[in-house]
Amino acid sequence: MLKFKILKQSNKSNGSDHCRARLGTIATDHGVIDTPIFMPVGTLGSVKAVSVEELDNCKAQIILGNTYHLYLRPGCDVIEHMDGLHEFIRWNKPMLTDSGGFQFFSLAKLAKFSDEGVAFQSHIDGSRHMFSPEKAVEIQMILGSDIMMSLDWCIGYPADEKQTMEALNKTTLWAKRGFDFWQEKGAVNNLFGIVQGGMYKHLRTLSAEQLTQIDFPGFAIGGLSVGEPKEFMYEMACHTLPLLPANKPRYIMGVGTPEDLVELVGMGCDMFDCVMPSRNARNGQLFTSKGTINIPNAKFRFDKGPIDTDCNCYTCQNYSRSYLRHLYKSRELLAYRLNTIHNIYYYLDLMEKMRDAIKQDRFLEFKREFYSKRQK
Amino acid sequence: MLKFKILKQSNKSNGSDHCRARLGTIATDHGVIDTPIFMPVGTLGSVKAVSVEELDNCKAQIILGNTYHLYLRPGCDVIEHMDGLHEFIRWNKPMLTDSGGFQFFSLAKLAKFSDEGVAFQSHIDGSRHMFSPEKAVEIQMILGSDIMMSLDWCIGYPADEKQTMEALNKTTLWAKRGFDFWQEKGAVNNLFGIVQGGMYKHLRTLSAEQLTQIDFPGFAIGGLSVGEPKEFMYEMACHTLPLLPANKPRYIMGVGTPEDLVELVGMGCDMFDCVMPSRNARNGQLFTSKGTINIPNAKFRFDKGPIDTDCNCYTCQNYSRSYLRHLYKSRELLAYRLNTIHNIYYYLDLMEKMRDAIKQDRFLEFKREFYSKRQK
Ligand SMILES: [Zn+2]
Ligand SMILES: [Zn+2]
Repeated sequence: MLKFKILKQSNKSNGSDHCRARLGTIATDHGVIDTPIFMPVGTLGSVKAVSVEELDNCKAQIILGNTYHLYLRPGCDVIEHMDGLHEFIRWNKPMLTDSGGFQFFSLAKLAKFSDEGVAFQSHIDGSRHMFSPEKAVEIQMILGSDIMMSLDWCIGYPADEKQTMEALNKTTLWAKRGFDFWQEKGAVNNLFGIVQGGMYKHLRTLSAEQLTQIDFPGFAIGGLSVGEPKEFMYEMACHTLPLLPANKPRYIMGVGTPEDLVELVGMGCDMFDCVMPSRNARNGQLFTSKGTINIPNAKFRFDKGPIDTDCNCYTCQNYSRSYLRHLYKSRELLAYRLNTIHNIYYYLDLMEKMRDAIKQDRFLEFKREFYSKRQK
Repeated sequence: MLKFKILKQSNKSNGSDHCRARLGTIATDHGVIDTPIFMPVGTLGSVKAVSVEELDNCKAQIILGNTYHLYLRPGCDVIEHMDGLHEFIRWNKPMLTDSGGFQFFSLAKLAKFSDEGVAFQSHIDGSRHMFSPEKAVEIQMILGSDIMMSLDWCIGYPADEKQTMEALNKTTLWAKRGFDFWQEKGAVNNLFGIVQGGMYKHLRTLSAEQLTQIDFPGFAIGGLSVGEPKEFMYEMACHTLPLLPANKPRYIMGVGTPEDLVELVGMGCDMFDCVMPSRNARNGQLFTSKGTINIPNAKFRFDKGPIDTDCNCYTCQNYSRSYLRHLYKSRELLAYRLNTIHNIYYYLDLMEKMRDAIKQDRFLEFKREFYSKRQK
């Protein structure tokens, strides 16, 4: 079972801006994570375009794997035979896996939800499969993830109240069954519950009340970043985070931009994951302390400078914007790697800077500086 | 000007097998190369899928850049502004560039050959360009390559004697003009001449006689691996290599398989380049001491072993065939990298083993062992 320690809890205001950021550590069987933390996404057993050593050098402390994807490819039989996902992909630090809930919403064909679980067809070959809440836990136990997620029903935006309620109720039912199954199996590793409730505050409250009656070692907020306006996402996060036990890690799934991370850390969120740094890198969009840049832009053709003069990543220490532009325009595989290294480093360095600011009790100042640099 | 030293010259027979292999060093402004050597191909300023540090770890001593490609993208203005190709791509060891001759044959549209040089259209956007022998040298001087290649007319297979003769004559004419231009410009770096002559021994003889009257610091054999049967390639190489000055490096362009390297080193060739190790890696075909394997093959699904138990590359030291198969089947970018690292290491390790064998005067024994392992 994980040990979550809160090292510092902010509670400061500056005009209308209130800071509830907290600094902590999560101890797992594969090591200790500093929170708040961002988890790079390694969908299929690889954070796309980078090696595990490069992740290390980017200050990655924990990565995320997608149960849905790994179940389909290479399959649980392979990962079991290879002694688990850590060993298979050669990542020896903590790993979190989702439950498949988001992929049933975003990717799988013909997902059918019932009390039993989710019946779906593979997006690859149309083959039929079924995830029960027990099976979702069982698969994640085979993967050997340090933090497993409970099977949830993630709905899109917009969704009416009735549909949202149905998804919420199933999510609670499955959460109980998944939790009981996990307990029976010896409660190895950790299992987090996922709060749903769409864009309805009272349903978020209801979901949080139901979920927190189950003694999960941590809680996540799901069903955000599903197409809703940004202010709804903030509103739901801000409403729901305080409803979760203060002494357990709080994780907002699938969010977001650097600005989102800063806002949500300020609200007291501890964990994040998002494909944005790696996906945008592969599309030539790079994050910098002054905002994002598009590396294929012609203005970088003769640019000898690094992506970001404030960045200490491998890419910025070695390569010019001119070379990165050339690689990207030429579709060289190295482009995807060098861009991804920078973006992931940027995200994880931002988290480290936020942790430092919380430690020094200056998170609101940090936040002002963060935004003022970007407005230039 | 490069310094070529021959450290050991074999001259041994075993039945019908004769060994003329030689061990040497080539000193350039960017360091010393051990010969015989293989040069990984970095077409567009990147050996596809690998970093310069990984090339270092794969024992790469010199890499090749393609003048035709770099001239079109990013363009000489960019590379000049960025202080040359070494600085641009962050490779500080020796570099060789070709003259474009092979790409006019294989890639460019509507290449027209005259005494003046080659007029062609870009394969990317159809734009019109002209390479004179002087311009081919001038571009390579801007790239700053340690070894530049003279503009040549490379013809395909089959080609009649008249056409072959014409290409040979132009190649000689251009070689003289390129050499004179290089001399005028202070003879910086090095310029190699290229022997043509198709699959006609007497034309290879003629071309070699004409070319070797020019005081190039080294000579290459071009126009091989253009679609001819393998025995023709060996026949032409075997015929032409002894016609080149023994005290200068001999380079066979665009060849070949591991078996080809072993055969041609035995004939006294010093330098090689080929896209095969990197291109095949990206197609999932991996070289091993026992022959090639296709990593997507279902038989590797549960295989915990490395690609090659005899290999000390990063990939083999860390990853299983099972994981590599999964990455490749899932089209993960990491697959291309890990496969390329192995294949390039395999090639360069093979060259090192051949150099050791020549040093110990046991090249023919090495060759027998090489083939006996592969026949298993
Ligand atoms: Zn950077
Ligand atoms: Zn290897």
